[in-house]
Amino acid sequence: MTMAVTNRRSSVREAWEWVDRQVPHRRQEEVDVRQAAGRVLASALIATDDMPAFPRAMMDGYAVRSSNLAAASGTNPVILPVSGQIFPGVQGDAGSLRPGTVLRIMTGAPMPSGADAVVPVEHTGTPTQVAGPRHDFVEFTRPIEPGKNVGPIGEDFRQGDELLKSNRRLRPQDVGLLSSAGVARVPVYARCCVAIVVTGDELLPAGSQPHGHQICDSNGPMLEALVQRDGGQIVQYLQVPDDPEAILKALQSPADLVIVSGGTSAGREDFAPDLVRQHGRLDIHGVAMRPGNPVGLGTLEGRIITLLPGNPVACLCTYEFFAGRLIRRTSGLGDWAYQVRILPLAEPMETPLGRTDYIRVRVLGKQVHPIARSGASRLSSTTLADGFVIVPETVASIPAGDHVHVYCYDRLQSG
Amino acid sequence: MTMAVTNRRSSVREAWEWVDRQVPHRRQEEVDVRQAAGRVLASALIATDDMPAFPRAMMDGYAVRSSNLAAASGTNPVILPVSGQIFPGVQGDAGSLRPGTVLRIMTGAPMPSGADAVVPVEHTGTPTQVAGPRHDFVEFTRPIEPGKNVGPIGEDFRQGDELLKSNRRLRPQDVGLLSSAGVARVPVYARCCVAIVVTGDELLPAGSQPHGHQICDSNGPMLEALVQRDGGQIVQYLQVPDDPEAILKALQSPADLVIVSGGTSAGREDFAPDLVRQHGRLDIHGVAMRPGNPVGLGTLEGRIITLLPGNPVACLCTYEFFAGRLIRRTSGLGDWAYQVRILPLAEPMETPLGRTDYIRVRVLGKQVHPIARSGASRLSSTTLADGFVIVPETVASIPAGDHVHVYCYDRLQSG
Repeated sequence: MTMAVTNRRSSVREAWEWVDRQVPHRRQEEVDVRQAAGRVLASALIATDDMPAFPRAMMDGYAVRSSNLAAASGTNPVILPVSGQIFPGVQGDAGSLRPGTVLRIMTGAPMPSGADAVVPVEHTGTPTQVAGPRHDFVEFTRPIEPGKNVGPIGEDFRQGDELLKSNRRLRPQDVGLLSSAGVARVPVYARCCVAIVVTGDELLPAGSQPHGHQICDSNGPMLEALVQRDGGQIVQYLQVPDDPEAILKALQSPADLVIVSGGTSAGREDFAPDLVRQHGRLDIHGVAMRPGNPVGLGTLEGRIITLLPGNPVACLCTYEFFAGRLIRRTSGLGDWAYQVRILPLAEPMETPLGRTDYIRVRVLGKQVHPIARSGASRLSSTTLADGFVIVPETVASIPAGDHVHVYCYDRLQSG
Repeated sequence: MTMAVTNRRSSVREAWEWVDRQVPHRRQEEVDVRQAAGRVLASALIATDDMPAFPRAMMDGYAVRSSNLAAASGTNPVILPVSGQIFPGVQGDAGSLRPGTVLRIMTGAPMPSGADAVVPVEHTGTPTQVAGPRHDFVEFTRPIEPGKNVGPIGEDFRQGDELLKSNRRLRPQDVGLLSSAGVARVPVYARCCVAIVVTGDELLPAGSQPHGHQICDSNGPMLEALVQRDGGQIVQYLQVPDDPEAILKALQSPADLVIVSGGTSAGREDFAPDLVRQHGRLDIHGVAMRPGNPVGLGTLEGRIITLLPGNPVACLCTYEFFAGRLIRRTSGLGDWAYQVRILPLAEPMETPLGRTDYIRVRVLGKQVHPIARSGASRLSSTTLADGFVIVPETVASIPAGDHVHVYCYDRLQSG
């Protein structure tokens, strides 16, 4: 409990610079096209072939030579024999159209040579009088332009086209496009492997019923949800006692990033900062922000360590500022999970100079209202809020009517 | 291939009404609080206790009786003995403060009776001259207000407070709040169980390399990503040949909703519509929309069946209009996955009367540009687009400058 933070408090900007130095180049991996939605492309994808690679029918109907139908009309129908049919995906050659005949063709099937248009089945008729079985003949009552209902080679894309740009977060239709192009494995940024370590002898595990002075852990499940939202992969979830040996073991989890919740200050039971100092580097301990001041950032045996305060709002805030940023950058995503709305303040806001503030706000009638009772221990302030405003350390007050950036809890970035 | 659609074409509105009738009441289930993020609450959650249930220390420091420090100053420090310490989560009674002493206390610990304030450790000193071991005494050089650094009972929430409203999509901090309130199981809407059935003898499975006239399935992986995005649970993923027996078996998948891709029209190889008609009801077959006209909607032995055209853009469009709406409504989400932006058209748009159009658009300089080459077979039109505009059947043209609703592919609804 004796305060022993001797490091100079860092600014939020310095802490961000530290975070950004930890992700110097993104690790890449290949995933199956069916697993690729939501991941971020690590390189542009170029079409290796034309799509379609052949002219194709765009309707169910008849492949015809348009010149044969030039004189067709209701009073002077052209009746032609059907010499076969072509299905999509036909093996080998699509065949050729014998002069003076038509071929049944289905949507997506390759056009036979000699045919230059497809007459949709609903524009044809069955002739009443022909020399043979009626279904072997078709009646056409109007001419057709060459090329009509034929999808040309490369209609969807051409060989060499950039199908999708690097750093694109893949949408469902992107995955469809890649699959149609024969891309089986997709190069994406690897996900950040994360260990979540909840400390605090006093905490019951999430999902327990607290009695008397007992307290249920809220940070573990919250951090799990945050890491999953941000594209991290949780490889370990530990709740450990306030015991240096147990905490050190947890800090050595096989992960890219170890997120510790609680015991990050400099109190008697706060072992994590000293352990990181002893076995690695604690580059930052204490950031000029509220809530979240006791946050610690360091490395230990190749892992990145973030020590987040046990206080739930401080834990959420420092996760968003530092741990989430790290996970999101690793996965190829933007620095914040949230979309920003720029809206006017309904009332003036005062905050101390020299400290970055994370102000929970409500948006009512397109105006921004700070939530008054917003102590760092009141997690309900973040569930009542529509989002937050960051007031930088150089700003002491913002007058009513000034526009501020609201990071919206209910509007996630997705693009 | 003979067209045999005898049903009247339905309007999009009629098809929506049909979809909405299929979700008369949402099924509910309980999930572990650690699995609840992103799910939608099926009922409001009310606090069963005060949080905290006891007055708690808000800082690491000393629990004091403020009246003892009334005269404290730098020149006249008050030195008091430390009679013990209190940790958070302490079992049983928090004890009481013996008059004329202080207790060490840590953040979150219950206040002892008799104490009414917490002096933070950094505002105290170690006395230089005392009768006993120095660490058993603390020096105070300033007075403190009663109640200072003490979190009162119910500071976060009170018994009976509505913690979260019904129909809220749970955010990470919501899950934290519920966990702190001792909620182990959370009542949420059940997810829609979905079977995806890809038909088409010509289609290679997704992830194959097409040769010659071969075509790779793009709809299966796209539908998987869409269903997952919309909170559906995929219980079956089948690629079946164009064979009535195989398709019927797939239609009988153990799911709430069977999504069939391809073979939904009325061609010779289009078995699904007739099978639904024979073994269930095909309530809608053909909707006045483009793309997507051949879509079919029905029921079969208690399952909902959506027959989506094989054409990739039509498949995407009819999924968004009908299948996705069904999955999202079942899970408690809104009708569209996308956020809407209202922006002016850069150029006039012409569309036929009597048909709803799904127009892919780009947003450039806050203006909406329809994508010109937007045939239903060009999936690349949906990957190039930033979103789509729906033009209702009653509208034939929209002049440049008119504001339209753009459903943004890269901005998902999340709240």
